[in-house]
Amino acid sequence: MPYGYTGRILRVDLSGGTTSVDTMGDLFYRKYLGGAGFISYFLLKELKPGIDPLGPENKLIFALGPVTGVPLSGSGRNCIGAKSPLTGGYTKSEVGGFWGAELKHAGYDAIIVEGKAEKPVYLWIEDGVVSIKDANHLWGKNTKETQDIIRDELGDDLIRVAAIGPAGENLVRIACIMNDLKDAAGRGGTGAVMGSKNLKAVAVRGHSRPEVADPGRLGEFRQWLLANRQLWASFAEFGTGAAMASTIGTGNIPVRNFQNGEFAEISNISADTVKDTIRIKMEACYACSVRCKKVVKVEKPYSVDPEYGGPEYETLAAIGSNCGVSDLKAVAKGHELCGAYSLDTIATGDTIAFAMECFENGLLTTEDTGGIELKFGNAEAMLQIIELIARRQGIGNLLAEGTARAAKKIGKGAEDFAMHVKGVEIPMHEPRLKAVLGLGYVVNPHGADHCANLHDTMLSQEGPPLERFKSLGILGPLPADDLGPQKVAIFRNVHLFRIVQDSLVFCQFVPYDSEQMADILAAVTGWKTGIVEMLRIAERTLTMARLFNIREGLTADDDKLPKRFFEPKKDGVLSTRHYDAEQLEKAKGYYYTLMGWDGKTGVPTPEKLEELGIE
Amino acid sequence: MPYGYTGRILRVDLSGGTTSVDTMGDLFYRKYLGGAGFISYFLLKELKPGIDPLGPENKLIFALGPVTGVPLSGSGRNCIGAKSPLTGGYTKSEVGGFWGAELKHAGYDAIIVEGKAEKPVYLWIEDGVVSIKDANHLWGKNTKETQDIIRDELGDDLIRVAAIGPAGENLVRIACIMNDLKDAAGRGGTGAVMGSKNLKAVAVRGHSRPEVADPGRLGEFRQWLLANRQLWASFAEFGTGAAMASTIGTGNIPVRNFQNGEFAEISNISADTVKDTIRIKMEACYACSVRCKKVVKVEKPYSVDPEYGGPEYETLAAIGSNCGVSDLKAVAKGHELCGAYSLDTIATGDTIAFAMECFENGLLTTEDTGGIELKFGNAEAMLQIIELIARRQGIGNLLAEGTARAAKKIGKGAEDFAMHVKGVEIPMHEPRLKAVLGLGYVVNPHGADHCANLHDTMLSQEGPPLERFKSLGILGPLPADDLGPQKVAIFRNVHLFRIVQDSLVFCQFVPYDSEQMADILAAVTGWKTGIVEMLRIAERTLTMARLFNIREGLTADDDKLPKRFFEPKKDGVLSTRHYDAEQLEKAKGYYYTLMGWDGKTGVPTPEKLEELGIE
Repeated sequence: MPYGYTGRILRVDLSGGTTSVDTMGDLFYRKYLGGAGFISYFLLKELKPGIDPLGPENKLIFALGPVTGVPLSGSGRNCIGAKSPLTGGYTKSEVGGFWGAELKHAGYDAIIVEGKAEKPVYLWIEDGVVSIKDANHLWGKNTKETQDIIRDELGDDLIRVAAIGPAGENLVRIACIMNDLKDAAGRGGTGAVMGSKNLKAVAVRGHSRPEVADPGRLGEFRQWLLANRQLWASFAEFGTGAAMASTIGTGNIPVRNFQNGEFAEISNISADTVKDTIRIKMEACYACSVRCKKVVKVEKPYSVDPEYGGPEYETLAAIGSNCGVSDLKAVAKGHELCGAYSLDTIATGDTIAFAMECFENGLLTTEDTGGIELKFGNAEAMLQIIELIARRQGIGNLLAEGTARAAKKIGKGAEDFAMHVKGVEIPMHEPRLKAVLGLGYVVNPHGADHCANLHDTMLSQEGPPLERFKSLGILGPLPADDLGPQKVAIFRNVHLFRIVQDSLVFCQFVPYDSEQMADILAAVTGWKTGIVEMLRIAERTLTMARLFNIREGLTADDDKLPKRFFEPKKDGVLSTRHYDAEQLEKAKGYYYTLMGWDGKTGVPTPEKLEELGIE
Repeated sequence: MPYGYTGRILRVDLSGGTTSVDTMGDLFYRKYLGGAGFISYFLLKELKPGIDPLGPENKLIFALGPVTGVPLSGSGRNCIGAKSPLTGGYTKSEVGGFWGAELKHAGYDAIIVEGKAEKPVYLWIEDGVVSIKDANHLWGKNTKETQDIIRDELGDDLIRVAAIGPAGENLVRIACIMNDLKDAAGRGGTGAVMGSKNLKAVAVRGHSRPEVADPGRLGEFRQWLLANRQLWASFAEFGTGAAMASTIGTGNIPVRNFQNGEFAEISNISADTVKDTIRIKMEACYACSVRCKKVVKVEKPYSVDPEYGGPEYETLAAIGSNCGVSDLKAVAKGHELCGAYSLDTIATGDTIAFAMECFENGLLTTEDTGGIELKFGNAEAMLQIIELIARRQGIGNLLAEGTARAAKKIGKGAEDFAMHVKGVEIPMHEPRLKAVLGLGYVVNPHGADHCANLHDTMLSQEGPPLERFKSLGILGPLPADDLGPQKVAIFRNVHLFRIVQDSLVFCQFVPYDSEQMADILAAVTGWKTGIVEMLRIAERTLTMARLFNIREGLTADDDKLPKRFFEPKKDGVLSTRHYDAEQLEKAKGYYYTLMGWDGKTGVPTPEKLEELGIE
């Protein structure tokens, strides 16, 4: 067993009400690392093709990495995966907080949840001991009530809880899973999978720190981070979403369902304004020095509970500018509601924005909305719709299906307004500005994801960000709208590195570079490893995710952007630029080739599978 | 200008008798690094297609790397390249000693020699000042006489001399270039190119050390090497070629022109025996702690001058076992003669072995040989043929063309005995034992080369060598006769890393691993770099070498092994194993694919060229 791991994978069969522990050989850990790697492995190996994502045959996997729970900034996270109720293919999502570290301390590297409990249950894991506990009294409760009751009945305020609210229970396809109320495994609909299993929460408490191979070396990395505060000072001060008032000028921030580039009120919802108005403090995840998490409090006109943390950039834009909403207190309330109900704020914001555009174009009427004037900028409407989605009431029952399915049901051209890739709503970054982001959105196995991507505006001019990328082979500035082979190759490396981080499972905001991450992995596990091996692990993981998707019927045709990106924005700096479809197709083909997949179909070649040791 | 470089490339036009200095931008250094990278760049950019390798339009390039001449073990080397008179394509060869470091100290990163002097000349470079000096009095002299006269007439015993002997002058295609009498840039026939330019020697003296970005970090690497003596202790004690008596049992050592696996007298010519009998000391290259170079002295029956150093493994096997010769003193004499005449010992040994097999099969007779009984094991004959080849006398004129051309001229099936790839003679490592070695021999741009290769017996069982390769992505032991996609991928990474070393220009025997080499490069240049960038530089260099070869008419059909390897050996452990032609073709195709070249033709794709920034 390598250092850094517990060597134990918990398997919970909710149908049978039994639990067991898998032990895997060293090779398993070295081949798949953790997090995203584990999830690719178990989904591909264990799921029967064609199963219903919301049926008992799906598996919900909570996976840690070798660094999870070691005393190092960025190591508190966990990864959650399943067959996605949005894409019908592979999904995984990462989440911060303390829960991941706590699970490691409780003695497990992962949990595989199988089957479906007859009645609502929650899992209670305390230092290796697992109980499946009744959750009838928790069903219907929001995440805070759930957490409070669990901590209370188990008698320990330091229990960490991953839970769903009503949205997960109601199989809302854009439901997420919340850690400690404040952190969301947002994307891909894993909250609905959890709900479909009648699993309300996973509560964990552990006291056993994983042993690491070289604690001294790990200490050096802690010191390095403290000595290089300038690299993360802005995160510590503002969290995500600072300076939105100036970045709106680049065209990156979506406005009114990705239609506009201009949003005069943008400074109202920037993290700078959050800091100056509603923010009461900053908080950290497990062991983290960066402390990038906002905590906000509002009393009027909405009461916003600080226990739900505060909105990240994605949320500020998704239920803010993308819905035309500039009322920061309403955005803060929307953020709290999403946390309480376990809704992905990105998907929720996009879905509401989509519905607003449908409404403004007459595809939805007050008859459909139950009287709500669902117009861009209507903050009250935004909040009402969140409630309806979570409870699948009225129009919310339609929108709970996510934009792609809702658009199909509405018909009449609504699909032109549905901003998604493979059914997963688009994050708050604009491919018409950053060409490679569009490539990343389409080739990423779990749909549009800004985290597993390259923000290529950083590569467009000389400077420290570009310098950092030179070690990945970039020779000089490449314009943000370039999507040639060099850009594709750099993107592939960055994407692979993100998958490494998601397998480690490590935070992207802690600014260790790829060389340092390799050294950290070596210090934790004792392996003599390096970047080449780490990138190959990511290649393996992505290729297995691709195989899973292919088995589920997804093809290269599903690697496509919504139509809107091929048109210019209605105003702002990108009103004269649109995404080039031919350029994207070429780039896609070259990406497939670089991955060792067929350049046309994107199907991994038999040789690549053999090379990567995929059976 | 990055640290570690002088920023000056010396250009010498021997036709016009003029010199000039090129200054290149930072990007040139970062894109091509040095050594092999510089050579790929200048050959592809500056040579007209189809020129005669032995005509004035060829260019002879001496190239250093960023680490050359910095105070670190392994940094005394240089690289020499040209269009090869053996392959008709790209060649480059590395050489140790002091000359490379001295050239850096004299103020240059490279020398490009163009044209042809009307009469013999030598170059004299002293602290940046270049003179083209008359060498009429040196012509016909061996390398020691040449060096002695130059040092004497310039009045400095510390002048470093790269020179050719009569073999280079006589355009012997297997001629090499000697540094300080003891070190050979052996492969590819660059000695003949030097001769064709009437350039007898390049003498250098310099006093200016290159500045490095982080001398302290470099010092740590010096300390690390001293603290890890166990990694190179065997080299320090024996040099190359230890334990040949036991490794003959693996089948790796060629015997009688690669026919046999058994050679009863092998222990006579092992480096252990060299140590116990004729060795008088060990020596080092510039700044090197390893000191792996044998110095031998013999008085009877041959007088062998210690100033020529001593035979490496390749020489012990090439003019020893591969010629059936077990007389160590004769081998030592042969080594001295090759140094004195500037002959590549590998090619010379293979050529003589080829001639011996022709003789034993009646394709050559005493009429052809001038009475020499050219049989395997005839040590005297071996020595006589070396003399004849160097002087192009008698049968030597035929053999001076190398095995491939000689075989073609002899006809009558002689080609079956010619052991070469692309006209370059096979080194002393057996592809029937190490499958991937055969792949390396065929795809390497300058023909069969053991240095730019992977000795995959190291990967066949668990243990420290395999552990080292895990950072390149190998998952577990792979049999030495395996040539599947995983092996091909590992080979590609190792091959690329060797090209990095040849660009740095750094010694393979100093046991820094790839991570350390990246750190050393960063410490010298100040670049924030890493393995990914280094491997991309090597990809670029290999792809440019491939383009050069394609331009000169070489195709995938030239990437082939001699017929003999597809048959078993006559005796020994490999008498039941032969190389699998179909397996090799598959592996070749997969290698091309991994390189971003067409999987059938091996032609680099336009996208790959664009990705790598090759115009």
